[in-house]
Amino acid sequence: MSIEAKFKKLGTDNAPGQEVRQSAAGLEALIRGAPIEGRPVDFSHGDVDAHEPTPGAFDLFSAGVQSGGVQAYTEYRGDLGIRDLLAPRLAAFTGAPVDARDGLIITPGTQGALFLAVAATVARGDKVAIVQPDYFANRKLVEFFEGEMVPVQLDYVSADETRAGLDLTGLEEAFKAGARVFLFSNPNNPAGVVYSAEEIGQIAALAARYGATVIADQLYSRLRYAGASYTHLRAEAAVDAENVVTIMGPSKTESLSGYRLGVAFGSRAIIARMEKLQAIVSLRAAGYSQAVLRGWFDEAPGWMEDRIARHQAIRDELLHVLRGCEGVFARTPQAGSYLFPRLPKLAVAPAEFVKILRLQAGVVVTPGTEFSPHTADSVRLNFSQDHEAAVAAARRIVTLVERYRA
Amino acid sequence: MSIEAKFKKLGTDNAPGQEVRQSAAGLEALIRGAPIEGRPVDFSHGDVDAHEPTPGAFDLFSAGVQSGGVQAYTEYRGDLGIRDLLAPRLAAFTGAPVDARDGLIITPGTQGALFLAVAATVARGDKVAIVQPDYFANRKLVEFFEGEMVPVQLDYVSADETRAGLDLTGLEEAFKAGARVFLFSNPNNPAGVVYSAEEIGQIAALAARYGATVIADQLYSRLRYAGASYTHLRAEAAVDAENVVTIMGPSKTESLSGYRLGVAFGSRAIIARMEKLQAIVSLRAAGYSQAVLRGWFDEAPGWMEDRIARHQAIRDELLHVLRGCEGVFARTPQAGSYLFPRLPKLAVAPAEFVKILRLQAGVVVTPGTEFSPHTADSVRLNFSQDHEAAVAAARRIVTLVERYRA
Repeated sequence: MSIEAKFKKLGTDNAPGQEVRQSAAGLEALIRGAPIEGRPVDFSHGDVDAHEPTPGAFDLFSAGVQSGGVQAYTEYRGDLGIRDLLAPRLAAFTGAPVDARDGLIITPGTQGALFLAVAATVARGDKVAIVQPDYFANRKLVEFFEGEMVPVQLDYVSADETRAGLDLTGLEEAFKAGARVFLFSNPNNPAGVVYSAEEIGQIAALAARYGATVIADQLYSRLRYAGASYTHLRAEAAVDAENVVTIMGPSKTESLSGYRLGVAFGSRAIIARMEKLQAIVSLRAAGYSQAVLRGWFDEAPGWMEDRIARHQAIRDELLHVLRGCEGVFARTPQAGSYLFPRLPKLAVAPAEFVKILRLQAGVVVTPGTEFSPHTADSVRLNFSQDHEAAVAAARRIVTLVERYRA
Repeated sequence: MSIEAKFKKLGTDNAPGQEVRQSAAGLEALIRGAPIEGRPVDFSHGDVDAHEPTPGAFDLFSAGVQSGGVQAYTEYRGDLGIRDLLAPRLAAFTGAPVDARDGLIITPGTQGALFLAVAATVARGDKVAIVQPDYFANRKLVEFFEGEMVPVQLDYVSADETRAGLDLTGLEEAFKAGARVFLFSNPNNPAGVVYSAEEIGQIAALAARYGATVIADQLYSRLRYAGASYTHLRAEAAVDAENVVTIMGPSKTESLSGYRLGVAFGSRAIIARMEKLQAIVSLRAAGYSQAVLRGWFDEAPGWMEDRIARHQAIRDELLHVLRGCEGVFARTPQAGSYLFPRLPKLAVAPAEFVKILRLQAGVVVTPGTEFSPHTADSVRLNFSQDHEAAVAAARRIVTLVERYRA
């Protein structure tokens, strides 16, 4: 494949945060009515000014700088002292052992962990089972390494509230067709649904039966709402621990994205390959930033409960506003801060409506096409925002849906 | 190529900073005499405690954290305000225009820039001209993307002091053989030599004649010693600016490695591809860290002169010590902080001697085999160290050379 062809698949024009590079040319003819006033809201990512970084994070960074060279130049897989601190916390959280020395790597963000994990498991021509919809980078990662994506549908719309809605028959068919890697996010990005214990159990059983490696992106697994139960794949009895890599990070719930930190843990063989690659990709997660992880999973009592309660309140009010609009479907997110409403039929194309939302209402959302070819009628909102501003922005979305209704 | 085969080529066992993962098994039988006392020195990378980060760097980081979400979530290619600050400084330094909007990307370290630049220019089967010796990751990057390395020799040993010693005929042969990318460091890592104006002019002319893309790693180009003149390839009249990417960063001279910052600038088309890839590799250089670049190329008057003078003094004393040992050849580094002495014939293999240096003398050096298959008899020292400790460590190296001399 030529370089040009390879990079053509990596389009970032609609990626969150890149709107500044978009042009609005050609939209004028479609515009109906006047702009709607209101504080702009960028739902493409969380607002770390509204939900601030974990208290103490900056002090830990500062101490890292003070400690000098030992913190600046860590092993490529990250500082061993910090890995020693994190391993038991991650083990307690996920319910299965974590090997600090050989089974854990600190990466530049969860994105860094995903990139290394896919690179370390997918060779050219390998088939990889990917959920639709799921985090948009998953598909791009597989394509960049010239793997072949085998889509598996997630019917979060029809599934009852106790299930995420994974097509388990489809997953088995993917394995039968030769897929040896399964990559998925739980809670699902963008739909916010959590896989049930039964679904995780069946994923584990299928992976074991077909000898498949599973990369579980659990970035949002700490931010769970009332009534949500969560099952960690890596703790399932059926799984071979060497065939699972779990990915997490403090960028979202903890609002620490500015430090670029993530972790991957599990399979020693895969983690070893990930470190070798990290050595030529970026050497290591920023040394001083790594020190911030000392406070991860060690937040003050009540801090996480408060963060969850605030997000749950925003979620509930946004759902109320969106469901008040005829033809909108929005499943209740069980964890994380993504809402993925399906909009009714509009008189403009979905990509145009996303641009119109930005231009007429100061509202940035991520188009559903980023997550699956089958969700063009949906948009993703990261509702980790200022509460009032988010609700007002949702009202503006509804106003424009009405204005552009087909 | 299987994943296992692909990653086997990415060995990091002898990589700087990874010594902690090495075993010393099997060396006992070779050991001669007792350990030599002395403060341990890790010549595998610079000592940022001895040569501290640029004053003000931490304050800029702190201000970045204070500014919140806008600094945490920048464009993937980095904050535009910071790119606007840097572009004219980099243009002034290199003598050719830099386009802040489309021709500059901020990366997680210079390593991040190198990775993205190679990924954005080398497809499977492409031939890439690589200097021997040169930075060890260059070869690994080409191999990771399944390119074919075409080595070009750098005869820094025989070249007179005014030239780096590049085999220009060999470079032209590489281009004739189909290489369309040339990747090199200037000053050269590990030899510390600077390419002459004539060498750069000829590289530019050859690249233009064969339509080759040049990736110039100029990481150390600010730390130049008395009498060294430096020519920026990107400012040569012969070059097509769209065929050159220049890479720099503040990790070395400025001791800011703990923040993981680098930049690549030049070709708009290549920078655009690099950003697309960054979106799936690590999203962006750590947002808060990016703020530290506001102080880059804006250091207090005299600061750089002082840093250079201190390094030149260490360089000169190390050269004096090493040249006092019969059979050692050490060319004078013209820039940067690498010394690459060739040792006389020893009774133990070079890889063993490197381990012996660590075990018996507390001295960590990087084996010459990391940089070229033809420099196994050399070791690389990053002499950005505490002056006295470095000189004492060099004396211990000489003592062990005498002890193990063949």
